[in-house]
Amino acid sequence: MISQAMREQVKSNSIIRAMFEEGKRLAAIHGAENVYDFSLGNPSVEPPNEVKKAILEIINEENSMAVHGYMNNSGFEDVRAAIADSLNRRFATHFTAENILMTVGAAGGLNVVFKTLLNPEDEVITFAPFFGEYRNYVRNHQGQLVVVSPNTADFQPNLEELKRKINMKTKAVLINSPNNPTGVVYSEETIMLLADILREKQKEYGSEIYLIADEPYRELAYDQVEVPYLTKYYENTIVGYSFSKSLSLPGERVGYLVIPNQATDFDNLISAANIANRILGFVNAPSLFQRVIAKCLDAQVDLESYNRNRELLYNGLVSFGYECIKPEGAFYLFIKTPLENDVEFCNLAKEKNILIVPGSAFSCPGYARIAYCVNYATIERALPGFKALIHEVKEQGSSNS
Amino acid sequence: MISQAMREQVKSNSIIRAMFEEGKRLAAIHGAENVYDFSLGNPSVEPPNEVKKAILEIINEENSMAVHGYMNNSGFEDVRAAIADSLNRRFATHFTAENILMTVGAAGGLNVVFKTLLNPEDEVITFAPFFGEYRNYVRNHQGQLVVVSPNTADFQPNLEELKRKINMKTKAVLINSPNNPTGVVYSEETIMLLADILREKQKEYGSEIYLIADEPYRELAYDQVEVPYLTKYYENTIVGYSFSKSLSLPGERVGYLVIPNQATDFDNLISAANIANRILGFVNAPSLFQRVIAKCLDAQVDLESYNRNRELLYNGLVSFGYECIKPEGAFYLFIKTPLENDVEFCNLAKEKNILIVPGSAFSCPGYARIAYCVNYATIERALPGFKALIHEVKEQGSSNS
Repeated sequence: MISQAMREQVKSNSIIRAMFEEGKRLAAIHGAENVYDFSLGNPSVEPPNEVKKAILEIINEENSMAVHGYMNNSGFEDVRAAIADSLNRRFATHFTAENILMTVGAAGGLNVVFKTLLNPEDEVITFAPFFGEYRNYVRNHQGQLVVVSPNTADFQPNLEELKRKINMKTKAVLINSPNNPTGVVYSEETIMLLADILREKQKEYGSEIYLIADEPYRELAYDQVEVPYLTKYYENTIVGYSFSKSLSLPGERVGYLVIPNQATDFDNLISAANIANRILGFVNAPSLFQRVIAKCLDAQVDLESYNRNRELLYNGLVSFGYECIKPEGAFYLFIKTPLENDVEFCNLAKEKNILIVPGSAFSCPGYARIAYCVNYATIERALPGFKALIHEVKEQGSSNS
Repeated sequence: MISQAMREQVKSNSIIRAMFEEGKRLAAIHGAENVYDFSLGNPSVEPPNEVKKAILEIINEENSMAVHGYMNNSGFEDVRAAIADSLNRRFATHFTAENILMTVGAAGGLNVVFKTLLNPEDEVITFAPFFGEYRNYVRNHQGQLVVVSPNTADFQPNLEELKRKINMKTKAVLINSPNNPTGVVYSEETIMLLADILREKQKEYGSEIYLIADEPYRELAYDQVEVPYLTKYYENTIVGYSFSKSLSLPGERVGYLVIPNQATDFDNLISAANIANRILGFVNAPSLFQRVIAKCLDAQVDLESYNRNRELLYNGLVSFGYECIKPEGAFYLFIKTPLENDVEFCNLAKEKNILIVPGSAFSCPGYARIAYCVNYATIERALPGFKALIHEVKEQGSSNS
């Protein structure tokens, strides 16, 4: 007798689960090394050495009651101050501990933000393609997710459509750069145009429209591409960050929110976010790992491993005739599927033991996401399958016409 | 421009916050050692040695990608199996890994349960006095908390009133034993009567009524008192547990839910709870500490420290003329305030640098909660203040009459 809403979740979830089971079934038949699982965004690069060092130092030297105990729901004050300092050094911002709220990963942080901001039926606008969980996070707090259709030319956000979709009920615009699933980094030009639109619309409606930046992939940017720090472009910005990818700690659930003093209603925002963190049941970000990340703010995973994967996969796929934007960040590559039906294409890929996710799961049919956070050798072994796949699909297409 | 609901939370929260600030103000004036803070349920006993040993073993010996990485949203399979085995050994139950879902503490677990079960306006019944956060947890998921008034004779639940309050919309009954704030342990007789009522009412309404047992204090029981394991008394039981108190790890946010096979709609319950854990933004219980607690299932904090505090405080207060039930569990003592107005009494206590929480905060006015998870010396030094307080209040009372 679960709730009606969860009954629907269980039903739709079981489709993804079936895919997952299929992967395990294939591995049992063909051997795990002959199944090429590009379906999950699970980091494949080890945490940097600094993490182990930090854990051992804290456990051997610090007081165990303080390390494992309750602190303010916003997190340890010294950890928040260290994060503020680090951001200030890197992005010429002016944050203090007061602007930082430690969260249970970025997912926890986004839920805190939506709990803080949303009245029932308030709208949050995001740009397709987007991480499917956004829909759940907004729904958890009785909001409505409004989706701007994808700009498949370059996967920068479709700002003209955004303008048309903003209305009285728009409480926030949610962006994710470097982007899951496209790997695209939103340019400074995009951000400035976006900020102008939001300022204009705030004036038009006499409302506050918060820009929420979900940034778990901030540190995974290649070719020295710059990822603009959004609080510098728009006052009502809230940044959500996670150490899951930058330090390969996805299981530890540690991240933070940045709420700048310039945001409208700052005092209430920061108090409400602190309370939301508590009453949603997070209570606080895990305490040991708050202390660990404070010692690892200048560390990061070996980006070159992901970069090598990116080059191998991108160059291989393009040489076979696949169309895709070269990703500038994150560890995803988003191909146009040679078959219009992306689900059908992903099923064909599965016959070659290649597991990839249909773009439909990101509200962008006709595409597929390849997560290249895998071993280099997995990509090498999978490439012939990708090549055969596009040839077969094209031959099938021409024999049909 | 925070939401209306959070605006109200910020307003009411600031009263508690003002009390907290008052404590800090008093400490600054009188010295921290002369302020007796009994307001918080923050463990005062160190984690057992096994915790440190387990952390070092895991960090030095296990694969860092596995230790800090994603796992199934329900938690590591081997950890869940170890918990099931431990419960089976201790309580003669028959659980497997499938019955266990690792959560971000008990607070996270309760939110997962309510997300899983509640349709809008569904009712959850609980017994006053109760932990105030229950109201928030139920509200997070659009449910209604229905409160059964306190049975101040012995603080066992008022089952006659429960019967009258169960109706078609009752989805769950939430109990907490050992209890916060009374320290009372619900007897086996109580549990059997409660189970009978729930079975009868399920039949009467043709509905499922889940019994949710919030058990963060299970291991803190004194004088060999037995805390009945509820799944053995009622099929539709869900148990929420936390290691915050048993291992003094409140900051680490690690606990679990037990969902027995006998529960109606088991397959959907377990699938939905797994999904709820993900979509609420918890994603999974922190990974390192899942592995740590699996190595510490036979360990616990030094209970005798809390027991000594209990004896000292209880005997002292009773000798001064305070009325209270001797707590059998947890680390709280719930006194009848010598003034009918509990808020006023707690304000008088503050003038003696004694910080305690009015029973009103637990929906039980006329009482106050004293959290004795403090240093033994703090209790010793505070007792004269408690003595003076009751004498002054009684003198004032007789001079008024």
